[in-house]
Amino acid sequence: MSATRVEELETPVLTIDLDRVERNIESMQAYCDEHELAFRPHTKTHKLPQVARMQVDAGAVGLTCQKLGEAEVMADAGFGDIMVTYPLVGWQKAERLADLAGRVAMSVVGDSAVVAGGLSEVLAERGVTVDFLVECDTGFGRTGVQTPVEAAELAECVSALPGLRFAGLMTYPSLAPSGPWLKEARAETEKRGLEVASVSGGGTPRARHTHELGVITELRAGTYVYGDRTCIALDCMTLDDCAVHVLATVVSRPTPDRAILDTGSKALTSDPVPVEGIDGFGYLLEHPEAAVYALNEEHGYVDVSLCDAKPEVGDVVRVLPNHVCVAVNLQDDVVVHRSGEVVDIWPVAARGKLR
Amino acid sequence: MSATRVEELETPVLTIDLDRVERNIESMQAYCDEHELAFRPHTKTHKLPQVARMQVDAGAVGLTCQKLGEAEVMADAGFGDIMVTYPLVGWQKAERLADLAGRVAMSVVGDSAVVAGGLSEVLAERGVTVDFLVECDTGFGRTGVQTPVEAAELAECVSALPGLRFAGLMTYPSLAPSGPWLKEARAETEKRGLEVASVSGGGTPRARHTHELGVITELRAGTYVYGDRTCIALDCMTLDDCAVHVLATVVSRPTPDRAILDTGSKALTSDPVPVEGIDGFGYLLEHPEAAVYALNEEHGYVDVSLCDAKPEVGDVVRVLPNHVCVAVNLQDDVVVHRSGEVVDIWPVAARGKLR
Repeated sequence: MSATRVEELETPVLTIDLDRVERNIESMQAYCDEHELAFRPHTKTHKLPQVARMQVDAGAVGLTCQKLGEAEVMADAGFGDIMVTYPLVGWQKAERLADLAGRVAMSVVGDSAVVAGGLSEVLAERGVTVDFLVECDTGFGRTGVQTPVEAAELAECVSALPGLRFAGLMTYPSLAPSGPWLKEARAETEKRGLEVASVSGGGTPRARHTHELGVITELRAGTYVYGDRTCIALDCMTLDDCAVHVLATVVSRPTPDRAILDTGSKALTSDPVPVEGIDGFGYLLEHPEAAVYALNEEHGYVDVSLCDAKPEVGDVVRVLPNHVCVAVNLQDDVVVHRSGEVVDIWPVAARGKLR
Repeated sequence: MSATRVEELETPVLTIDLDRVERNIESMQAYCDEHELAFRPHTKTHKLPQVARMQVDAGAVGLTCQKLGEAEVMADAGFGDIMVTYPLVGWQKAERLADLAGRVAMSVVGDSAVVAGGLSEVLAERGVTVDFLVECDTGFGRTGVQTPVEAAELAECVSALPGLRFAGLMTYPSLAPSGPWLKEARAETEKRGLEVASVSGGGTPRARHTHELGVITELRAGTYVYGDRTCIALDCMTLDDCAVHVLATVVSRPTPDRAILDTGSKALTSDPVPVEGIDGFGYLLEHPEAAVYALNEEHGYVDVSLCDAKPEVGDVVRVLPNHVCVAVNLQDDVVVHRSGEVVDIWPVAARGKLR
């Protein structure tokens, strides 16, 4: 691609507005600095060492990854402090974690003695030590121990295991009820004579309320760096904050009311916006009245009945995705621009990485 | 990965049962042979030259691709007859099509004079000719001309354009109403003195009813080769036909009723089964009573309350995906086995390929 303006690129293509990315990074780091929170941005949103570098240069203490494969990419790119916020199960993952721990400072999370024990066995054998945070389900209903007492008990178990260093408590996402929950878990843990060095909370939607909880010492957030339609629906970012768009071409206008884009679930994801009353699979910047009412893998179905100026075959439109992390994972490379002027093309180095 | 049994592989991982693939290929080819239908399997499901080779060796007349990028992979792998069933818009795509047409027999589809004209200009300039089929919307409501007369008019337009050879009519999917629609379109087209060399229909669910329509000469189908939860819900394949499973590990059992798998939308897709009354995001072979009730990118939420033997942390389970084409697109490589014995690992050569 030798185009110099994003509109000239072959579609579909995911573009990143670097000015907006810089602004988002600065703003969230300033929030954390103001409230003396350590900031550990989640790389699952961008999957790019280039953006991770901007985040660390701005003041982040380290990175968050969801998969070991992502952590390996970031370690290879020179980052020295990585937390994998996912329970690692199985000997292959323990061995890979040991490899990483021999090169960089690693921390992991888990919600059971089975997970901790499996890691400990391999890490101790390999002579390396990894920080372990107890994952707490403070209301989301996914992974995590179910009560503050369970958290303290697992902390006690972990602190006795070779190869692991008990490093604190972790939750996702941090919501209002997470505050009292984590305070109680910290007290229960300290009652057992253990130090709770870190209480790590996460999630973009409530990120700027983290200090109100009065217990969290470290924030993890990913989506804040790009924004998406869900962030707008949740009222934590504006349309002008959103840095990522998928450029699409109208390939068919079979009826007066229907336009078909060359951008389907294979470029945008079929994830809905998880907010009552918000339908559709993307927002068209050039046609705010249009509704992306369905997706197939390569087709985006757009109802243009309410558009004053209807898009024609060959028109290129910018689509704001529902869920940017997933959209990024579908791209082999992304185009970086400033005000529409292409400045670089980056391979998405940590794309895929299922394991 | 040096494991010899699929159960020993690091998860998540997508596995392909080669015995079942062979059986599915044989069976669909036998159907086409019996009814004297040309068979042009869609490669979007497998994205693998290895499987395409098996399909052509079994008697397929050529391949179907949805994207030029997929066609380029298949042409590089030595396949000589490729149809791209997608309207190609923009000069970059016309140039790439011309490149391909200089190497292999190419056919394309479109539903407007704009699409045909854009291609014609570049192809004629480059001195190559491509077969063009008029895409007909016979009821699905996606792309395609809206009436049989429109089909004939576009056929007439195409037949006058240099660089294009009018080659027939195409629809997706071919359902019961497609029969009369296409017969009328064929008659209208022939009335204008044009030969309708091919009437190409597609889709796995109704594939084996194609001959009943009495007008279709060529069948395109993709999903039949692997099967998925949607195929079972639509009653066109059985559980024992399904060749693809995603192996997942239980990484958390936070409550008596909840298990969390290391397999989320990033390995399975968030596509629902598009059939009323069928919920969830996958079927667990080892725990048929379990319900995969939600997915995040890396987490599969399973309700195990109805399971007699509940899966424990560390257990590996096989998940039948809702929509196999999308699941395949999320894998960098796939593991091929016979009766669970690993026989090969294949890179998914035509994965991604958004353009």
